[in-house]
Amino acid sequence: MFEWTTGGYDEALRAQIKGWLAEDIGSGDITTETTIKRGSRSKAVIHVKENGVIAGIPVAKLVFHVVDPELEFRSFAEDGDSVTKGTVIIEVEGSTHSILTGERLALNLMQRMSGIATKTKAFVDALQGLPVRLVDTRKTTPGHRMLEKYAVRVGGGANHRFGLYDAVMIKDNHIKGAGGIAEAVTSARKQIPHTMKIEVETESLSQVEEALVCGADIIMLDNMPHDMMKEAVAMVKAKSPHVIVEASGGVTLSTIHGIASCGVDVISVGGLTYSFQALDISLDLNEKKEVGRG
Amino acid sequence: MFEWTTGGYDEALRAQIKGWLAEDIGSGDITTETTIKRGSRSKAVIHVKENGVIAGIPVAKLVFHVVDPELEFRSFAEDGDSVTKGTVIIEVEGSTHSILTGERLALNLMQRMSGIATKTKAFVDALQGLPVRLVDTRKTTPGHRMLEKYAVRVGGGANHRFGLYDAVMIKDNHIKGAGGIAEAVTSARKQIPHTMKIEVETESLSQVEEALVCGADIIMLDNMPHDMMKEAVAMVKAKSPHVIVEASGGVTLSTIHGIASCGVDVISVGGLTYSFQALDISLDLNEKKEVGRG
Amino acid sequence: MFEWTTGGYDEALRAQIKGWLAEDIGSGDITTETTIKRGSRSKAVIHVKENGVIAGIPVAKLVFHVVDPELEFRSFAEDGDSVTKGTVIIEVEGSTHSILTGERLALNLMQRMSGIATKTKAFVDALQGLPVRLVDTRKTTPGHRMLEKYAVRVGGGANHRFGLYDAVMIKDNHIKGAGGIAEAVTSARKQIPHTMKIEVETESLSQVEEALVCGADIIMLDNMPHDMMKEAVAMVKAKSPHVIVEASGGVTLSTIHGIASCGVDVISVGGLTYSFQALDISLDLNEKKEVGRG
Amino acid sequence: MFEWTTGGYDEALRAQIKGWLAEDIGSGDITTETTIKRGSRSKAVIHVKENGVIAGIPVAKLVFHVVDPELEFRSFAEDGDSVTKGTVIIEVEGSTHSILTGERLALNLMQRMSGIATKTKAFVDALQGLPVRLVDTRKTTPGHRMLEKYAVRVGGGANHRFGLYDAVMIKDNHIKGAGGIAEAVTSARKQIPHTMKIEVETESLSQVEEALVCGADIIMLDNMPHDMMKEAVAMVKAKSPHVIVEASGGVTLSTIHGIASCGVDVISVGGLTYSFQALDISLDLNEKKEVGRG
Amino acid sequence: MFEWTTGGYDEALRAQIKGWLAEDIGSGDITTETTIKRGSRSKAVIHVKENGVIAGIPVAKLVFHVVDPELEFRSFAEDGDSVTKGTVIIEVEGSTHSILTGERLALNLMQRMSGIATKTKAFVDALQGLPVRLVDTRKTTPGHRMLEKYAVRVGGGANHRFGLYDAVMIKDNHIKGAGGIAEAVTSARKQIPHTMKIEVETESLSQVEEALVCGADIIMLDNMPHDMMKEAVAMVKAKSPHVIVEASGGVTLSTIHGIASCGVDVISVGGLTYSFQALDISLDLNEKKEVGRG
Amino acid sequence: MFEWTTGGYDEALRAQIKGWLAEDIGSGDITTETTIKRGSRSKAVIHVKENGVIAGIPVAKLVFHVVDPELEFRSFAEDGDSVTKGTVIIEVEGSTHSILTGERLALNLMQRMSGIATKTKAFVDALQGLPVRLVDTRKTTPGHRMLEKYAVRVGGGANHRFGLYDAVMIKDNHIKGAGGIAEAVTSARKQIPHTMKIEVETESLSQVEEALVCGADIIMLDNMPHDMMKEAVAMVKAKSPHVIVEASGGVTLSTIHGIASCGVDVISVGGLTYSFQALDISLDLNEKKEVGRG
Repeated sequence: MFEWTTGGYDEALRAQIKGWLAEDIGSGDITTETTIKRGSRSKAVIHVKENGVIAGIPVAKLVFHVVDPELEFRSFAEDGDSVTKGTVIIEVEGSTHSILTGERLALNLMQRMSGIATKTKAFVDALQGLPVRLVDTRKTTPGHRMLEKYAVRVGGGANHRFGLYDAVMIKDNHIKGAGGIAEAVTSARKQIPHTMKIEVETESLSQVEEALVCGADIIMLDNMPHDMMKEAVAMVKAKSPHVIVEASGGVTLSTIHGIASCGVDVISVGGLTYSFQALDISLDLNEKKEVGRG
Repeated sequence: MFEWTTGGYDEALRAQIKGWLAEDIGSGDITTETTIKRGSRSKAVIHVKENGVIAGIPVAKLVFHVVDPELEFRSFAEDGDSVTKGTVIIEVEGSTHSILTGERLALNLMQRMSGIATKTKAFVDALQGLPVRLVDTRKTTPGHRMLEKYAVRVGGGANHRFGLYDAVMIKDNHIKGAGGIAEAVTSARKQIPHTMKIEVETESLSQVEEALVCGADIIMLDNMPHDMMKEAVAMVKAKSPHVIVEASGGVTLSTIHGIASCGVDVISVGGLTYSFQALDISLDLNEKKEVGRG
Repeated sequence: MFEWTTGGYDEALRAQIKGWLAEDIGSGDITTETTIKRGSRSKAVIHVKENGVIAGIPVAKLVFHVVDPELEFRSFAEDGDSVTKGTVIIEVEGSTHSILTGERLALNLMQRMSGIATKTKAFVDALQGLPVRLVDTRKTTPGHRMLEKYAVRVGGGANHRFGLYDAVMIKDNHIKGAGGIAEAVTSARKQIPHTMKIEVETESLSQVEEALVCGADIIMLDNMPHDMMKEAVAMVKAKSPHVIVEASGGVTLSTIHGIASCGVDVISVGGLTYSFQALDISLDLNEKKEVGRG
Repeated sequence: MFEWTTGGYDEALRAQIKGWLAEDIGSGDITTETTIKRGSRSKAVIHVKENGVIAGIPVAKLVFHVVDPELEFRSFAEDGDSVTKGTVIIEVEGSTHSILTGERLALNLMQRMSGIATKTKAFVDALQGLPVRLVDTRKTTPGHRMLEKYAVRVGGGANHRFGLYDAVMIKDNHIKGAGGIAEAVTSARKQIPHTMKIEVETESLSQVEEALVCGADIIMLDNMPHDMMKEAVAMVKAKSPHVIVEASGGVTLSTIHGIASCGVDVISVGGLTYSFQALDISLDLNEKKEVGRG
Repeated sequence: MFEWTTGGYDEALRAQIKGWLAEDIGSGDITTETTIKRGSRSKAVIHVKENGVIAGIPVAKLVFHVVDPELEFRSFAEDGDSVTKGTVIIEVEGSTHSILTGERLALNLMQRMSGIATKTKAFVDALQGLPVRLVDTRKTTPGHRMLEKYAVRVGGGANHRFGLYDAVMIKDNHIKGAGGIAEAVTSARKQIPHTMKIEVETESLSQVEEALVCGADIIMLDNMPHDMMKEAVAMVKAKSPHVIVEASGGVTLSTIHGIASCGVDVISVGGLTYSFQALDISLDLNEKKEVGRG
Repeated sequence: MFEWTTGGYDEALRAQIKGWLAEDIGSGDITTETTIKRGSRSKAVIHVKENGVIAGIPVAKLVFHVVDPELEFRSFAEDGDSVTKGTVIIEVEGSTHSILTGERLALNLMQRMSGIATKTKAFVDALQGLPVRLVDTRKTTPGHRMLEKYAVRVGGGANHRFGLYDAVMIKDNHIKGAGGIAEAVTSARKQIPHTMKIEVETESLSQVEEALVCGADIIMLDNMPHDMMKEAVAMVKAKSPHVIVEASGGVTLSTIHGIASCGVDVISVGGLTYSFQALDISLDLNEKKEVGRG
């Protein structure tokens, strides 16, 4: 999903959340159930413990809602906000049992997503003013793709394809299997819907030219030196200005500006979702409101 | 599961693998299906691209088996082996379509698991010769707990509880909710099975004493200075030698030896599963065996 | 779960209830649908037809809630109450169709659970004043373990482990497979979390001694004569007072007091969940409130 | 299903078995996994410990097959056989881990099913030579209906309807709701498929007459005295010989012959599945075949 | 289900709707999410674009409810109403995103169901005044049986059996397999519940006689000429007036009256659900109510 | 999926088949189970009863494999073959019970799919020699999209997008919601992956121009007269030759050639999957091979 709305249809995420809760709770949270009285109610606050970009507030809300629809959830920030250490971003009020049951998963997901958004923001800032788009890849954690790709968008990036199903991406193995770039592109074009694009991964100028000639919609320059990239961009834009040029490989905060300066339209960075630091976020029960009978 | 055997009952993992494949494949791998001929067969080799401890070979085997039971899978290493850059660890042979469908998920899981095993091994090595056990925590990736805890064992570590269901762990919030350590321990002991242990998280010597008096089975020392830890260990061992002492908080490769020297029985490290570098592993189709009709 | 609260997270039970309803309803309750007018509303009362201990009221509430969230459910008793023949324990009001759809499953579950609670209560009463805990086993009906173990707690008993996952229990077959008690205990202790206990089943004093020496946390005396049991208890308490002694085998209402007098800490009784008489409970539609159009 | 065949489509039962295994195994059978070496192989025998009628052998076979398709399963008896204490009925050979994982569920199901078959057989024997059919009811354990109804057939009984979906059964509450027997039968007949029967529960001769007049296919005599039953049978057979007469209520081994003598066609007994004694059956690992590396 | 009520238990249909929505939405409705502002609200009207019988309004309501429980749904017609081109039958108000997400599935189902109801109505009208019942068959679209059989009832028809589970229907292949009609009927009668009927498919008068003699409850005349049908009806009614006679094969709007005149009780028509024209229905967003922030 | 291969990953289809079998079989195929002896084996042949294009043979194979992996399945035709009345296309051999259980679903799916392929072939033939592609729409039967879109390919057509997730398609309602074509296209382009295309539905030349100017990748001409279509094609090809022009609306076998002559690249026809005649196909058990004991 592109945005998170209360009225949005979230069945798939809801089902995942139930599975993740089951993984942790199993046959019961015996500690909470045997130490906290039934009927106890609390207010909890969630605050960030280091600076970063917040992502995942609507996900946390859904976690608490799945656990107990009667919990009251109030947020004081929005996904994409840059927050500083100590900021309270959420308040949850209701059954102490329910809050403690949902706490860990809610935090866990927000910490991971905020870590991705924070890292993405740093790359996007490094591209300030350049006419280039930063995108992710399919190198996401199994079971977390939609959340991680959403976090990239929250951080200011954009997405590459969502999976194997929504665009053709011809890589080295496919070229080998098909017998060449032209063979692969032609065979795919004949069979895929006219609503779908074909991207070709290239490693040399001759491959770029071959992809261009046979009508690729996107040409990816894989790990090319800057000079070669510039030449590739020139070749593509001269012949087919509507074809998109994407750079990939060896992209770091220190190299990205140089890559962007080669004139590519898109830079893809697997590390946005593959190697990030979770943002430290924690929950405190700070007010006991009323206690039921034990 | 504690070990991975061919005859082992792996229904839960198998179901997860199907879900993870569906996330990536969706309505179909259009690139492979439209560029590689139906009936094409290949042999692929999987090799590591940096030094580390391998974990996840039986998981990769299961992934390929779920995708296509007719793929032949041969491994040249075992989980726990320390391997060096370039080592070929697996060979898969059969339908090219099936190999490419399973490739990404198989690699993805092995890379993550090997990263955890490699990090764990480094911590275990730092404890060489000391009578202390290194364990993980519940800070695992949602949906990946069993695999990540297994990877910790592969790296030479041990596990803390598996979830909220298999041990009582009384933390700050529970102590607040129950009205004190003694109240929490007593209330839990009365209700839980006699087959279950109670662990109490403490931050001061007086809390250690309180936990000890009311009969905790495990006492966790949270972020205590070395002197205090030593005193706590002495107090516990003097009074109840069968009670286990666990240290937690601020554990790094440079601090762990010092912490262990305080005499604790167990050291828990959330970062084993929370912040690790995936090990780089890749698959090459290197031999086309036969081609069916297109 | 240890208790039943409105705000509690009950996803697993809810899913089971849906499966059990589907088993009975299949493609539709044709009798109700073709004989009772659409829109008909009723009030129904549920009463017990023999003396016993009630268990399962919150389960019945959940059944009716799953069937139709708009049914009003009022209870006049609590789980654990001893009730006499004729007592009205529940009133349900709303759509007649919904009441009849939920009726059978709700009654069925309460009848079974109350039967278990009633039987447990009889055993607990027989132990009045003795410092011993009565527990169940894993001999529960497939699919009903959590409900049956809850019913044992409602009747005043406690639980043995919940499944194969939350405690080590070394039985005859494991001892044979491992090559001895010491081998089994040592091998398990090395691999299991430090948060987990080990129980060993013994049939002779020498086995008790072996289990004690190698550090078992719980020693179960299986079908031992009273003299041997007393000697075993003495041996254990002399050497390791924190080790728990459990008796099992041949426990009936007439033998249980004698067994308890041997000084064991825990007595386990498979028959609590394995062989019980359901408590007779029934539902009457006794007031037609309004009728919609047919 | 009516019979159990190897080639039979058993998806629903297979799914239930997976759920029941998950209930017991959860995150792993830690005892077996940490005490029995990986690769260990055994032969186990299953024998009965008291006289009775065996039911559930194909179910046990399926349990072991779900756990590990490579286990070899050999049976020396068939469902419906009367066996005596000590008889070996099954031999299972293969991975020790797999045998121990499947053991409990397989035994549990066979014990329950054999208990039902044994009880049914006793009732059927009491009807020897009389032209009457013994049937069960819908009072089955939630989640076990198909297995329990199959066990009744194994014991020589027949089945009443399978659920709310395959026959109309008009009871007291429906009669009240519809405004009378004639109203209920007429309303149902108009709406149900012509392939479906209508049964009416009656408590008096005037109700029997009303049901007969409005065209019920089956008339159930609920708890009637013998004289009334005889008169009811006479009335029905005189007017509509194809209408089936069923007796219900207060049926025990000592009353059933008398009830049958009243001339009814069918006697239904809820207790066949509601209150039975499980047959004692156990598994012994008696031969260790080979051991793999640990 | 026989009727559609708000309070009705609709879990199975709800689960199907979720699956059908997932088929269409996959990883997200990118068009709506990227072109319509979050928070936008609309009122939409649904109208029919050709004359026909409406079926599926409660299904459409459930679709919108599954997508977003906060959508307001108002209907101005009832299932079974004959409507004319241009009639507005439904109004939906709420989140524009939710309306557009549910639109296609809701329309799709109503169009198919109304097509079936409209066709059924035409056949029923052709039987006006004749004492014969029009029924469907099992030739329904996989996954749509309950909805299609409901639509037949809405159109004034009745249902044949719901599946393989609720009546015995002995066809040519069963007769061959059993060795004759008498063998098949006798074998089935002995094993099936007394609450179930047996129907036999016949192709000649001698088969009719055989079925009659061995006690079939329903005799189906398959593709017989009118004269033979009349003779068959006479034979059955003379011998066993309670036996139902069903005609099948070659039934069209022009032949059905003639078939009915042969005196059969029931006529089954596979084409009601097998070959129908969907009724054209569409949704217009016609009023933008308010817009949230983008 | 684009093709059907034995080694292909077919989990999603397999799960659907299980659901569809459950819909029909429910608690059991009582007719087959009570009339055909257990262990009976047969050979069955499947033949077509009218001329057409076959589609669905690999689906039928999967159905029989799901029901019983030991059935032998041999096909004498391939999807896409034009066959004539009477042609035997498949032979299935094995358990009679399994064949009869799978028969109906296998036939049902092949009949529907072959009907779609046959209709598609007729449209494709009508376009013989013209440089235009025939495609389907999203107007497919809920739950059958992938099979129906595959059948269109088998018949020689191509596919439009698979769902809401793999291409942007801006229709009237989106234009209204966004405030204009330019606003909708610009807003979408900014947010969607660069791997995705945007199609705009237009009804006038000024809309075509607006879509062209703001960079649509595909322009759909909805129900335009021929003259207007020709002008639209000319306008698009003059300005942006890589933009695809699609025609839609009012396409029949008699109009399609004229529409194609207007120079459009693609013609989409909802009726390919929305309104088709199933191809008549049937199964005969023609050889009884052996009989087990009853």
